[in-house]
Formats: sequence, C-alpha cells, structure tokens
Amino acid sequence: MEQNKIPQATAKRLPLYYRFLNNLQIQGKTRVSSKELSDAVKVDSATIRRDFSYFGALGKKGYGYNVEYLLGFFRKTLDQDEITDVALIGVGNLGTAFLNYNFMKNNNTKIMLAFDADPNKVGTEIGGVPIYHIDELEDKLDGIKVAILTIPALEADRVTDRLVSKGIKGILNFTPARITVPDDVRVHHIDLAVELQALAYFLKHYPLEINEPTSEQ
Amino acid sequence: MEQNKIPQATAKRLPLYYRFLNNLQIQGKTRVSSKELSDAVKVDSATIRRDFSYFGALGKKGYGYNVEYLLGFFRKTLDQDEITDVALIGVGNLGTAFLNYNFMKNNNTKIMLAFDADPNKVGTEIGGVPIYHIDELEDKLDGIKVAILTIPALEADRVTDRLVSKGIKGILNFTPARITVPDDVRVHHIDLAVELQALAYFLKHYPLEINEPTSEQ
Repeated sequence: MEQNKIPQATAKRLPLYYRFLNNLQIQGKTRVSSKELSDAVKVDSATIRRDFSYFGALGKKGYGYNVEYLLGFFRKTLDQDEITDVALIGVGNLGTAFLNYNFMKNNNTKIMLAFDADPNKVGTEIGGVPIYHIDELEDKLDGIKVAILTIPALEADRVTDRLVSKGIKGILNFTPARITVPDDVRVHHIDLAVELQALAYFLKHYPLEINEPTSEQ
Repeated sequence: MEQNKIPQATAKRLPLYYRFLNNLQIQGKTRVSSKELSDAVKVDSATIRRDFSYFGALGKKGYGYNVEYLLGFFRKTLDQDEITDVALIGVGNLGTAFLNYNFMKNNNTKIMLAFDADPNKVGTEIGGVPIYHIDELEDKLDGIKVAILTIPALEADRVTDRLVSKGIKGILNFTPARITVPDDVRVHHIDLAVELQALAYFLKHYPLEINEPTSEQ
C-alpha cells in the first residue's frame, strides 16, 4: 500500500476516522457513506472525500467506502502497535474516569502513572495505575512525553510549567484554563462545556428530520 | 450587524471559536491570528479564514482578527441568553465531573436533573442537581430535549431507546458505544480515548519546533 504525504490538516482527522470505522467493523458493517462519516466525526462530506482521496480510497456513489480497506490503511498509519506512555495529573472525578477507562480500549496509548495532592489517594492504585504525590512529579516522569491535565483550573499554569520543565511535549488539557507553553509543546484543549453548547446550538438551529433522503441508516 | 446565512459546516465550529475567543478576552487579548486559532480549535487556517468571512470579519496580515468584534457576533449567534435544559444519565466519575462543572461555566446550557441506578446516589444532589432513580426517567424528563450519556457502554442502547421515546432530540454520548437513533435525533460522540490517541499521533509524526516563524505567541 503506497502512502503519499498526507497534509497535516488531514492527518489530524485520522484518529477520528479510525475509531469510527473500527466501531463500524465491530458491528459487522462493510461500507460507509461520506454522509454517515460526516455526521459521526463532525467533518463536512467534501473534506472527508478529499481526505480519503489521499489514502487512495475512492468512494462509489450509492455504495460509499469499503470499511476494511480504510481500516487497513489507518491501522498502518496510526502505528497501532507502538504504545505511547502517558501520565495523568489530577485524580478527581474526571481523572478517575480516565484511569478506569484505561484498559477498556484497544489503542496505542497507556496511562502509566498518576499524580494527586490528596494523601488519601497517594499510594493507592486505580485501574491498575499507581498514584504518586504531585511533589514527586519531577522524580517519576522520566521519559514520559504526554500528560493528561485533569486538575482545577487555578493550578493549571503552575503544573504545566513543571511538566514542560521535565520534558513533556504533549498535554491533553481538560481544565477550562488555556495554558501557556513553549512553541515545541503541543496542547489539545477539550472543553466539556463547549461540546454541550455545540450540541444545544445545533439542535436549535439545525433540527434533523425523519427520513432524510441522503441518510443511509 | 448583518447576519448572512452561514453554511452548516461553518455553524458547527461556532461554539468552538466562541469559547476560545472568550478565553482570550478574559486574558486581555484584543487580537488573534488565524494560526493561533487554528492551533487551539484544531481547524486549518484556510477554513477559519473562510468561516470568518461569512461573519464579515476580515483578518489583516500581521494583525489578525479583532477579538471583541468576533465575540460580539458570536454571542448574538449562539443565543447566549437562551438556556437549554439538559438531563444527565449516569452519575459515575465522568457524570459527577459534569455535575460539578455545571455552574463553573457561563454558557447557555444547564443540567437540571440527573439519573442513576445506585440507591446511595438517588435522592442526593451534586452541584445542586438532584439525582433520581433511572426508573423515574419517563416521569421526570418532561420537556427536556438534550441528554448527556455517561453510563456504561453495555447499557447505552437500552437507555438511548428510552430517551428517544420520551422525546430527547440531542444526545452527547460519552460511552464508547455507538448508539442507534432515528434520523431526527442528533448524537455527538466524544471518545476520550480518541482524543488521547490523536495527541500521541501528532507528537510522533508532527513534532513542533521552538520559534516557528508563523507563531505569534
């Protein structure tokens, strides 16, 4: 399978496509339309068709895309076999949800250790992941490049500085705070409130109808 | 301020733009580049520039966009004053995080009530939100159109059917399960594992560099 150079904007969407197609295959589906993909991953159909043309996947009108072909391509591209170690900072409700979630998914990331300031949590394990005191951050992070930030917003900046000093290059930020990092550190910010707001907005302004002619379901 | 008809793909990104710009304003920033926006909301710069042209906002080279102008437009468009009532189904760790989060954000959605099967939770409140037994779903949901699903994946289908029967039109699905709904019900699926996987993928394949010439920070 030949891999052409994929534009960065397209590459960003690969993991989304991958997960959705994986779910389809588990359900026994063999094909998918760009409309169905569009609804699921929140990317417009034209963009999806352009993205997929880079993968050498051409959809057929009235048929859609072959799920297995796409998955084969994506698996290779996403390096499913190479595991990225991750640290989780902040074992509150959201952090605990992540730790319990850790082993339920077959993917290429694994939370190796967690940090919190609560003495009742330090020294315990959740989902098999050991929890250390936040003061031990610098001692324990060796070699880890990715961190999940699930701490209160007010602590976000201070902890981020410590993570960056220790060599963290990617932060999944679940705090409402926008954090400041050097240019070589990648931050993905996920705001749960925005997700809810977006859904409410669509419902109000773009109500769906029963039996849309372009729908496949 | 004149509002032209905005394409649906553009409209989908409004809440994301809004939240990010709101954060910028809180920090006292008056302008933003499409590059900075692109990094934050994970949409490519060309798309952002096209989107903003629909809002009548034209960026200036070397200056960027006026934050206040954009926010004024977005506030109006997103109906910040009209509140959408929301029900939360499943008061586990993730659900509890949502309930605590409810009143920390200034936006147009509000979780009014929650449901769980655990008798220790039923009858209590979290973040001021009352928790009812899941058996009371049909009695209590009256008039609510949006639900957050934070239950185990195995229960997702059954609960979804009950929500749809009761008139729910929008579901924010945080379970790993892909749920099946009629065409007139909108589902936004947020997969925490995909978010982490995407970050790890980027870090590996698109490492950032210090002092990128196009960066503004």
